[in-house]
Amino acid sequence: MKTLLEAIRPTTFLEPLKLREHMGIDLTIATETFQHTGSFKFRAAYNAALNAPGDHMITASSGNFGQALALACRMLGKRCHVVMPDTSAQVKIDSVRGFGAEVILIDTKTVGREERLDQLMEEFPEAYRASPYDDDFVIDGNSSLGDEITAFAEFDVIVAPVGGGGMISGISKALCRAGHKTELCGAEPLLGNDAARSLAAGRLIRNEQEPMSLADGARTISVGNRNWEIIKDGVSKIYEVTEDGIRNALFAYFLEVNLKVEPTGALSLGAVMENRADFEGKKVCCIVSGGNVDAKVYGEIIGAGS
Amino acid sequence: MKTLLEAIRPTTFLEPLKLREHMGIDLTIATETFQHTGSFKFRAAYNAALNAPGDHMITASSGNFGQALALACRMLGKRCHVVMPDTSAQVKIDSVRGFGAEVILIDTKTVGREERLDQLMEEFPEAYRASPYDDDFVIDGNSSLGDEITAFAEFDVIVAPVGGGGMISGISKALCRAGHKTELCGAEPLLGNDAARSLAAGRLIRNEQEPMSLADGARTISVGNRNWEIIKDGVSKIYEVTEDGIRNALFAYFLEVNLKVEPTGALSLGAVMENRADFEGKKVCCIVSGGNVDAKVYGEIIGAGS
Repeated sequence: MKTLLEAIRPTTFLEPLKLREHMGIDLTIATETFQHTGSFKFRAAYNAALNAPGDHMITASSGNFGQALALACRMLGKRCHVVMPDTSAQVKIDSVRGFGAEVILIDTKTVGREERLDQLMEEFPEAYRASPYDDDFVIDGNSSLGDEITAFAEFDVIVAPVGGGGMISGISKALCRAGHKTELCGAEPLLGNDAARSLAAGRLIRNEQEPMSLADGARTISVGNRNWEIIKDGVSKIYEVTEDGIRNALFAYFLEVNLKVEPTGALSLGAVMENRADFEGKKVCCIVSGGNVDAKVYGEIIGAGS
Repeated sequence: MKTLLEAIRPTTFLEPLKLREHMGIDLTIATETFQHTGSFKFRAAYNAALNAPGDHMITASSGNFGQALALACRMLGKRCHVVMPDTSAQVKIDSVRGFGAEVILIDTKTVGREERLDQLMEEFPEAYRASPYDDDFVIDGNSSLGDEITAFAEFDVIVAPVGGGGMISGISKALCRAGHKTELCGAEPLLGNDAARSLAAGRLIRNEQEPMSLADGARTISVGNRNWEIIKDGVSKIYEVTEDGIRNALFAYFLEVNLKVEPTGALSLGAVMENRADFEGKKVCCIVSGGNVDAKVYGEIIGAGS
């Protein structure tokens, strides 16, 4: 049974010359696109599957966390159920099944994800119900990325994508541990700016509905409660990135860094590109959360940018 | 003045779980897509600019070597001329100029590249004329990639893309140094299979004309003389990859590895995918030479594959 640090792939640091010169900013990229299952979520999922009691994990995820938990459970010999909307891309469903998890497809118009999870927990009371972000094991797993970043360099500012807040709360914990004075900022879609509004108001605010941003990893109603408790003190600012900003950052990664990123992963660079003055003269680390993007969506963004 | 090893970025090794399971082959990727200027050519160019006599470098290149030499010369404070066809993509011309090199555009219908280089050498007799592959400094620079691969693991077989033979001859030198019994194979486009025909015939054979493969880094008339001397003994086989094989490998990298590669960089995986039986049960390293590809070309391949 591998420890978390044995199981994960260390993040990949890039110091892209062209992008640095083009932007005039001392930029380092920490990319999780080559993490197992293609996103940082594997850190969270493996840590949860490793430490949760029992031998059965249950979650709801249409995206990266489902794949990551499925693989983690396979590696650790645990049973795994993943609740997914029946509108999920077939390639994502196949991928979760391919790692040996049992997929439960739901029609989200007739049954909510949480409702279906409640039913499953009644059926399997010994199972562990893992939130993709609002979970201490998940936050601790993600903090391993923060440890790698603080060990790599002492940055003036780190920018992390924000969906449910699982990553940024983990990074915040790692910064505290390291005693770095690094400023931690988030980047979320302007279309779903609940975290920015929450930080401004000093209390957790929810979106009315799931925001339909291109950044599908940030289509969350709000950050989680556990995440909010960390974010409210540990994060200085949340940037609100336009949809064009996401596209432009994704294309800049393609063109100047040779890096394939998913729209959610492009949020942090999008924030820097749209707010250049805030980052001038600073040593900046942008975190790329993952690289799993539909080929059609990606091809269209690249084609339009060229 | 940085040494070669100080100047280059170490290669990025990937051990992609999905691709391994999908193919059933113990595959490791050594990717040079994140090397400075986005391809392995920077190793060659820097080593040439570092060691060549004089303070002026001249080359002809429509692609990665020109950019790499321009940056190397900027880093080393040398003057640099790059002869490019006037049909080169503007983005490539801009990139070479952006690194401070002087670009000489030629109409290849009226003047050959070698002819124009001859003229330049008359004008600047103190300059060093660097071939992108047929040059000992270039081969030695590329051998640094081979050193990194032999230090990473002892593979049963390494597959390298072949254009002018600069990379594969460098890898061969490194394998000799390390005393590894690793088999070294090449992968070139079937459309321009001069190296495969040369190896079969035991003598250097040239294409009639520049092969119009999608793999633009392998549109060479033949491998170089210095490269051939190494290849004829050090390389066991050259795979001839179809154009569809190149596309399929490029898409597999996109889909299963989150890796953006250029068509020439996809040749090695294309060879493994088209000749799976040859690699079964072996520990295989595929080298990706670079990631610089036109957005339109890439978007079309990705869109078609989805």
